[in-house]
Amino acid sequence: MTLIPGIDFDAELRLVDAHWTPRVVGKVNDQYIKVAKLLGELVWHAHDAEDEMFIVISGRLRIQLPDHQEVVLTPGQFFVVPRGVQHNPVADEEVHIVLIETVTTAHTGDVIVEGTVPVEQQLGKMAAQ
Amino acid sequence: MTLIPGIDFDAELRLVDAHWTPRVVGKVNDQYIKVAKLLGELVWHAHDAEDEMFIVISGRLRIQLPDHQEVVLTPGQFFVVPRGVQHNPVADEEVHIVLIETVTTAHTGDVIVEGTVPVEQQLGKMAAQ
Repeated sequence: MTLIPGIDFDAELRLVDAHWTPRVVGKVNDQYIKVAKLLGELVWHAHDAEDEMFIVISGRLRIQLPDHQEVVLTPGQFFVVPRGVQHNPVADEEVHIVLIETVTTAHTGDVIVEGTVPVEQQLGKMAAQ
Repeated sequence: MTLIPGIDFDAELRLVDAHWTPRVVGKVNDQYIKVAKLLGELVWHAHDAEDEMFIVISGRLRIQLPDHQEVVLTPGQFFVVPRGVQHNPVADEEVHIVLIETVTTAHTGDVIVEGTVPVEQQLGKMAAQ
């Protein structure tokens, strides 16, 4: 019997040392599975053609949406931001998340800011596979 | 400010009353997000064209693979069974999981058994959306 270890979200998150820098840890069909640490806020943006799934592992994440709507996620909860919808994730404390999104999804969607991390950089060791 | 609640995996799992009966709780791009309760084992099967992601929420899941390989998953861990690979999930105790798989993925893939649950039935209330 050969035992294959599962992939542990917390262990993968320990390898992340910068906020707002997603790290690809797997792939299911045409979607990347990523982990990220968030603190503060990034930027309002949208992904025209791609939904984006946020799962909270630790902490409390607010996702600001148009028309003064806001989603609040705690550990074990998820939300899918539909394609084309402007959103702004805000972490008042450090939040650990899993992101599931299409392999082509750009980090900050339709805007480029100083903190934008290209998908190639998010791939890290996965790029070689 | 309008607050939109996140979707809570545990709350969704409380609505599941049968083992091996996935329940669709969301959709991200072309993938369904499902929750399921497992106990015992289902059947060896494969999905020819679709990867299948297992995330464990509670309990300990074994996924038997060809050539006497086995994945063991505990809470906070995941594994993606690649397309075309025969697998047999085994839950020696009750296990709660999240499944992420293409909307077209058949429950028991290339085999049909008494416990096979068609995707239409997995959809439940989501079918009306």
